[in-house]
Amino acid sequence: MEAYLDNSATTRVSEDVKNIVVKTMTEDYGNPSSRHQKGVDAEKYVREARERIAATLKVDEREIYFTSGGTESNNWALIGGALANRRAGNHIITTAVEHAAVLQPLTFLQDMGFSISYLPVDSCGHVKLDALKEQLDQDTILVSAMYVNNEVGAVEPIEEIGKIVKGYNPDILFHVDAIQAYGKYRIYPRKLGTDMLSVSGHKIHGPKGSGFLYIREKAKVKPLIYGGGQQRGMRSGTDNVPGCAGLGVAAMEAYTNFDEKVASMRACKKRLIDGLNQIEGAYVVSRLEDAPQIVSCAFPGVRSEVLLHALEEKGVYVSSGSACSSNRKVPVSSVLQEIHLKPEMQDSTIRFSFCDWTTPEEIDYALKCLNELVPVLKRYMRR
Amino acid sequence: MEAYLDNSATTRVSEDVKNIVVKTMTEDYGNPSSRHQKGVDAEKYVREARERIAATLKVDEREIYFTSGGTESNNWALIGGALANRRAGNHIITTAVEHAAVLQPLTFLQDMGFSISYLPVDSCGHVKLDALKEQLDQDTILVSAMYVNNEVGAVEPIEEIGKIVKGYNPDILFHVDAIQAYGKYRIYPRKLGTDMLSVSGHKIHGPKGSGFLYIREKAKVKPLIYGGGQQRGMRSGTDNVPGCAGLGVAAMEAYTNFDEKVASMRACKKRLIDGLNQIEGAYVVSRLEDAPQIVSCAFPGVRSEVLLHALEEKGVYVSSGSACSSNRKVPVSSVLQEIHLKPEMQDSTIRFSFCDWTTPEEIDYALKCLNELVPVLKRYMRR
Repeated sequence: MEAYLDNSATTRVSEDVKNIVVKTMTEDYGNPSSRHQKGVDAEKYVREARERIAATLKVDEREIYFTSGGTESNNWALIGGALANRRAGNHIITTAVEHAAVLQPLTFLQDMGFSISYLPVDSCGHVKLDALKEQLDQDTILVSAMYVNNEVGAVEPIEEIGKIVKGYNPDILFHVDAIQAYGKYRIYPRKLGTDMLSVSGHKIHGPKGSGFLYIREKAKVKPLIYGGGQQRGMRSGTDNVPGCAGLGVAAMEAYTNFDEKVASMRACKKRLIDGLNQIEGAYVVSRLEDAPQIVSCAFPGVRSEVLLHALEEKGVYVSSGSACSSNRKVPVSSVLQEIHLKPEMQDSTIRFSFCDWTTPEEIDYALKCLNELVPVLKRYMRR
Repeated sequence: MEAYLDNSATTRVSEDVKNIVVKTMTEDYGNPSSRHQKGVDAEKYVREARERIAATLKVDEREIYFTSGGTESNNWALIGGALANRRAGNHIITTAVEHAAVLQPLTFLQDMGFSISYLPVDSCGHVKLDALKEQLDQDTILVSAMYVNNEVGAVEPIEEIGKIVKGYNPDILFHVDAIQAYGKYRIYPRKLGTDMLSVSGHKIHGPKGSGFLYIREKAKVKPLIYGGGQQRGMRSGTDNVPGCAGLGVAAMEAYTNFDEKVASMRACKKRLIDGLNQIEGAYVVSRLEDAPQIVSCAFPGVRSEVLLHALEEKGVYVSSGSACSSNRKVPVSSVLQEIHLKPEMQDSTIRFSFCDWTTPEEIDYALKCLNELVPVLKRYMRR
């Protein structure tokens, strides 16, 4: 049996996503910028995808810009937002538990002269709102926070952050990294006071190399990539028609029978947590009421790398640390540090992540494997 | 019958490209950054693709960085090259006939305080080397030139430019936009004195949303997109495995039976030019000895937009102006201006572009349609 429980790293594309990608690569393969019918036909796919995505967020389709993925979306929001507003100030606020795709572009901006503040989190990984209130000042031009933490699944108080930020100064841009939240929560940027929102395709059965950035119509943001003027000059480059079309289908599918899908993931989460609590010494880091698809659990006495590979031999795929980071030599996660997990816990933490296709049988199989492996590995480690 | 003669805008993907894209979306769908077997399997595709591409350029595979396409490659080379070397100077030299994906990021850099010089071209579209010699100065940090012009097919003297630039100061970065040249010429960056070289996947039967930037090992270039540290920290974001794998196959295919493929395109070019010369008033802008896949031709007295749509009704797909630009309201091309084509010629210029699949029958059909349409449209226009 196989249990792919690493869906927060990446997912398999759906049948309909695959079909539209193949169709736009082999039949309707035109360049949307071409003036002839093949261009017009290709453009229809991009427009339809944009409409499908806009509908899920209840925004205007002109506010959706396709990118090459979540990392580009985050870079664009932060660098484009900062450069467009540098005359208003140079202070940017984010949280201590963001993904590297937010933290690293902010380091670049710091080198360019911007000042960055990092908000602390509580032991569940939730941002401390009082710290946000303290950090906001007249120089603040941008606040960036993630919706769902990719490692432990903590759901951040986005709506409250939006209220505090916009209440302080409505001109401050508020960016949300929704890469692990889109398709798991109903997200309405207008209601959340969000100016920019990043989403990745391959986390929701869409194609790798696809993503989008929502930009509120009146938000002042510079492009990150310049050229032929595609996407109304905001993101140049020949439209990745298969990527856009595939992402459009994936977005639509994610919000079709949405409640059932989320309930199914949450049932898997509960089933897994209940089972983990039966394993001696296992410490479940994630809270049941946080994101439905992520369970982070420490197995003190067992190194996460070792457990990961032992599970893999039985066909159970999980991750240790953030699976979106390619730095394989630094498995220790900053999020686990920030929530003050003991070092020996950090080194033994595994992330299980689901999608709407995950079955109770897979969960049971993973638990069976864990029950076999953990005691053996613990004994082995002690030697 | 149908004749798709707009291959410089985009191409249909090949069967093997499609197959590897499907396989990596549905079977080997892992995230190369994941530490388990599914990640390792996915990474193999990326590594193989990098090796295949490196082999075509005779460079080290560590010098190949995957991007979301030619536009990102150009933006990265220019912005990343300029920012990494700003302490050495602020002067950048390019040509007056570059694609918008070079000209527009340079405008951004100008706003950031860099100074940009544009080299003029002769009536064939070839850069004037004397002008380059005059412009080089102690502040010059970067020179960017295209290999093949996308509108008229002019082949620029890249090797000579490289010699002049590196002879003046070997620390000056030399970037080549090879988007219309890769797969049509054997390109060896080391021989050309090139530090960076941009290529797009969808111009060579690869997937849209794929491309790469060659960066010479010791060249000082900053990333454009920051995050999880993929591609040795130079281009973060989950690897677009299907895009990389598809591009690798497309690159390999482009240089398999390469001489036959180029000869086939050049035979199409000769056949078309011979036929065009039989059409009264037609003025062939492109020279036979320039790029094998591009024929630009003016039909004075016929507006190019009108001819494009008349041809499209007969299943002949061509472009007017640069098809990679989405600005549909400004059909007049800067390249045609720069080569001093008369304004009435500019407004009547059509670009035909081939791939290795283009047949003599398609050329003959296009010529038959032109012979029917041009005289009729001329009469109609005169009214």
